Amino acid sequence: MRVSFPFQLEATSGAARAATFTTPHGAVRTPCFMPVGTHGALKAMTPAQVADTGAQVVLANTYHLAQQPGESLVEKLGGLHDFMQWPGPILTDSGGFQVFSLPGVEIRDQGVRFKNEKTGEVMDLSPERSIEIQNRLGADIIMAFDECTPFPAPRKLAATGVRRTLAWMERCIQAHARPDDQALFAIVQGSVYPELRAECAEGLAALDCPGYAIGGVSVGEGHELLCQVTETTAPLLPANKPRYLMGVGLPEDLIACVGYGVDLFDCVIPTRYARSATVFTSRGRIRLTQRRYRRDAYPIDVSCDCYACKDGAFSRAYLHHLFAANEVLSAILCAIHNVHFYETLMTKAREAILEDRYADFAREFMADYGPAPGGKADSPTR
Amino acid sequence: MRVSFPFQLEATSGAARAATFTTPHGAVRTPCFMPVGTHGALKAMTPAQVADTGAQVVLANTYHLAQQPGESLVEKLGGLHDFMQWPGPILTDSGGFQVFSLPGVEIRDQGVRFKNEKTGEVMDLSPERSIEIQNRLGADIIMAFDECTPFPAPRKLAATGVRRTLAWMERCIQAHARPDDQALFAIVQGSVYPELRAECAEGLAALDCPGYAIGGVSVGEGHELLCQVTETTAPLLPANKPRYLMGVGLPEDLIACVGYGVDLFDCVIPTRYARSATVFTSRGRIRLTQRRYRRDAYPIDVSCDCYACKDGAFSRAYLHHLFAANEVLSAILCAIHNVHFYETLMTKAREAILEDRYADFAREFMADYGPAPGGKADSPTR
Repeated sequence: MRVSFPFQLEATSGAARAATFTTPHGAVRTPCFMPVGTHGALKAMTPAQVADTGAQVVLANTYHLAQQPGESLVEKLGGLHDFMQWPGPILTDSGGFQVFSLPGVEIRDQGVRFKNEKTGEVMDLSPERSIEIQNRLGADIIMAFDECTPFPAPRKLAATGVRRTLAWMERCIQAHARPDDQALFAIVQGSVYPELRAECAEGLAALDCPGYAIGGVSVGEGHELLCQVTETTAPLLPANKPRYLMGVGLPEDLIACVGYGVDLFDCVIPTRYARSATVFTSRGRIRLTQRRYRRDAYPIDVSCDCYACKDGAFSRAYLHHLFAANEVLSAILCAIHNVHFYETLMTKAREAILEDRYADFAREFMADYGPAPGGKADSPTR
Repeated sequence: MRVSFPFQLEATSGAARAATFTTPHGAVRTPCFMPVGTHGALKAMTPAQVADTGAQVVLANTYHLAQQPGESLVEKLGGLHDFMQWPGPILTDSGGFQVFSLPGVEIRDQGVRFKNEKTGEVMDLSPERSIEIQNRLGADIIMAFDECTPFPAPRKLAATGVRRTLAWMERCIQAHARPDDQALFAIVQGSVYPELRAECAEGLAALDCPGYAIGGVSVGEGHELLCQVTETTAPLLPANKPRYLMGVGLPEDLIACVGYGVDLFDCVIPTRYARSATVFTSRGRIRLTQRRYRRDAYPIDVSCDCYACKDGAFSRAYLHHLFAANEVLSAILCAIHNVHFYETLMTKAREAILEDRYADFAREFMADYGPAPGGKADSPTR
């Protein structure tokens, strides 16, 4: 596989890294959080609003797009960038994560067989098919079709997952038709077993992929185990390639895992929480539907300069009202704020790494934000 | 009542008028369409996106805001402009229209008694109470509490409505505590009976209000009767005051009624239709959920320069996909487009009036747009 995706490591601070990863649709400064647009659209945000948050890369889901509108139509319409009007870098997942969680799914070495949730039609997904779909969708970063081990999993199941993941990675590379303009990232599995993670990482590192992900996390293992797995796995990945922690997470997860040397993150949390009125502040997260915010004239976060907060724009009382009135604008404003919060967090983390004070930054952030879950702002004393 | 709201008539073209109406929150160039933000928010649009459409005035509903979050809270938070972050002019209705349509409503000379839809609580609305609420909400233009006659209505019922509307108007004026910074508009009722409309208009004109509305329309009477009522009623209103046709309408309604001398319009149609995938184009309206748009690479309207259309941005195929995937972005983009379509229509109408070619403009627009309902674009030959 050709390496046509330059990764420039700019600074380290402890294990934390600041780097620039260059894709055909622009450079990505890391650490970087990638918001999720499952169907090729972030929930309740226009691409212009997404860009205004500072987001550099957006993620779209192969499983959903393959079912609706279908990868052929996206390809015909010029690929995902044109289709969803996102001019910057895009990442697609393999579709495996969604398929593995379907009831009655059959996993074999050849691939995965499942029933379409809507039509009941029997469908197959394999390394070859996943890469074909992703080639057609045309994202800058595409993901290996791996076996995502559930949590908890006995060692034997996790070992099978590692074996398949390694075998499938070779098939993904073989199938990949656009290595020059799509970076195919490998995914390390192995559940919570350090020696399986090491075996998987070692096997994948030998393939010299343009990027490496840690998968099989954010599946219910919790903050502590997530940190353990990431702390032990990240150093096993090639230092000269981007490292992506899949599906993570809460601000406290990002702060910890940047500290372990992770460069890229994605998660639905900022937009999903926005829809249920939970917003992030420098002093923890708050839930705007709580009665205490009914008359609160302050913005979500006075120190935030997102569209929803800057110049004290929209009050918590107004947002509380919008949620009570079931107005979509509530989700729009909270999504803008939450994604901006995540992007700003990563920007500040990058600055701290460049100035070699990441540990201090992380400690100070967490001191203000409060311990997980929820931080200070949810505490009754606020 | 002091007249502190300058209305400058700039040009006429036939009966059509171009004018500037000045409010404490800015000048309104007419003809002007006012989009509706029932709960103090347009459906699925941020105030910045609303302003980008060219909208000058937004409407909010007194009935809804009085119930949630309550006018006292809005007042405490600085009034409706601060609350909803709309720095330009705002208009509130009287709340009567919503109350009159509630089941079991009791209408007496004193006022209206009804049950709160959610709580079941018995509530009263009267000229005094409506004006009190509107004074507290703080819009630039507030509306008289009138009796909106349903359609169809026997002459006797319509005559009672006119009598009450005239009597209630005097009580509204008496109750109005902020005549210097809130323009109280009178509303002409009288259903489809020209002599009742004339009686009502004459009685209200004598009160020298800062603006006059035609009410009791857009209640199911259809395009032809709407045009008849407007054509006969508009000339009866003072020429030196703004004229507002309430709750109207479709583009063909606006084009016709600008021609009868109406200056202001409001309607939920652009945002409501957006949510059900119906968008307006220069060649009529189209419904993006139709199968024919599934692979359509064109924007909603190639001649439109709204955020959704400009530079051929978002394809009909993408919007079709967003509706199929139940993504909120579909409503956002279509609302932006539809409101922009209405505002652009009014801007072009104004230009035509200033150049004294309104009749030609109206004819040309309708020739392209096609006859109501729906216009050319919904025809099977398209």
